[in-house]
Amino acid sequence: MVEYDGTDYFGFQIQPDRPTIQGCLESVLAKLSGEKTRLRYAGRTDTGVHASGQVISAMVNWRHSISDLERAWNALLPNAVAVRSLERVIDPSFHPRFAARSRIYRYRVWTAAWRSPLQMRFAHHEPKAPDVEAMNRAGCALLGSHDFASFGQPTHGDITIRKVVTATWTQEEQMLQFEIEANAFLKRMVRTVVGTLLEIGKGMRPEDDIVRVLAARDRTMAAQPAPPQGLRLAFVRY
Amino acid sequence: MVEYDGTDYFGFQIQPDRPTIQGCLESVLAKLSGEKTRLRYAGRTDTGVHASGQVISAMVNWRHSISDLERAWNALLPNAVAVRSLERVIDPSFHPRFAARSRIYRYRVWTAAWRSPLQMRFAHHEPKAPDVEAMNRAGCALLGSHDFASFGQPTHGDITIRKVVTATWTQEEQMLQFEIEANAFLKRMVRTVVGTLLEIGKGMRPEDDIVRVLAARDRTMAAQPAPPQGLRLAFVRY
Repeated sequence: MVEYDGTDYFGFQIQPDRPTIQGCLESVLAKLSGEKTRLRYAGRTDTGVHASGQVISAMVNWRHSISDLERAWNALLPNAVAVRSLERVIDPSFHPRFAARSRIYRYRVWTAAWRSPLQMRFAHHEPKAPDVEAMNRAGCALLGSHDFASFGQPTHGDITIRKVVTATWTQEEQMLQFEIEANAFLKRMVRTVVGTLLEIGKGMRPEDDIVRVLAARDRTMAAQPAPPQGLRLAFVRY
Repeated sequence: MVEYDGTDYFGFQIQPDRPTIQGCLESVLAKLSGEKTRLRYAGRTDTGVHASGQVISAMVNWRHSISDLERAWNALLPNAVAVRSLERVIDPSFHPRFAARSRIYRYRVWTAAWRSPLQMRFAHHEPKAPDVEAMNRAGCALLGSHDFASFGQPTHGDITIRKVVTATWTQEEQMLQFEIEANAFLKRMVRTVVGTLLEIGKGMRPEDDIVRVLAARDRTMAAQPAPPQGLRLAFVRY
């Protein structure tokens, strides 16, 4: 399981000539094992998005203990990336994306009037607090299996049906947190859901608009995606 | 009231040729008012230390409303620095340092086994959780008026007696937070207190060592200061 501060990275997935989380993990692993290794991972995260519970797997040429590998990997990784825990895979066919039962993402919104330098690295700022109850009522319409084509593009195949099991806003003082769990997500889906719910919370859209957006299966009906810094991949269930 | 992420700054106080919070606030203010203005402030913070409630004051040449000044100032400040609120001073002799009755600092310690990229900007990492109850019992010895010469140097004058009214550790999951309130602090005092309490919490010193360190009035008796990124000036009382 891997945690990272995505602020200064062009997303998880490796790209030529740009710093990415995958690139960073693979280059350290190549130094340690003496050979290039391609990582498998549970979820791609966009530029600027964070993770506290990304899951990766790799076939690694390593003679020492698994905890030695964890220590060595962490020692060479930059401060922004860390291996939280490492285990030996029993089934060699294990793939962190295909084996995942569901993913949990969290999105944080800072709602005080002032821009907070201590919060803004990991939260989106809305200087007027949105209506959390309205956003929670609207979020309920997302629960269950639906075609989410209005909220994002598929990254693999062309099916846009996803099953959402949680979509809840909670509030702690001036910080709101949205938690959404689904079997899988479309590209930009969480941030587009958040953007649309925030427009509802700010009274820019009626609450039941979420039903119309969902039914339309048209990307132009939803709001723009909320900014990346509020988002983190929190957990992957197997 | 000013909030800042001190990570990339050489402390609050202005210095030639180095980025500081004061330098940053003053240069924007000079642009807005058309003249150089020296800020007064409640507490100096060291390199890498943060603040959520620093208090500053200044005589500013400004024709518009105070809320216009707040907006303009925030618009030109870098992301790491923000004016939380701004008020007109009634008494022109007001000085945020001399008028302050007490200061509240908070220090955060992340105690999970793994180094957390999402926490480490604003917390010090102790991979083995220290004994919070032992640290709280030891912290009680600091309450009241004492000569804190073992814990730091005076920045103004040479008196090293300070009155501490709160010194408490709390825990929320894997994050510890130390809150300390005193009429004023010596240079490095909070971090040296934290460093010493952490050594007690880790069993490197007996609990009652804190009494001996306090009585010694000798800087070499206390621990090294804990690292700056865990510390923030939280609030100033008037």
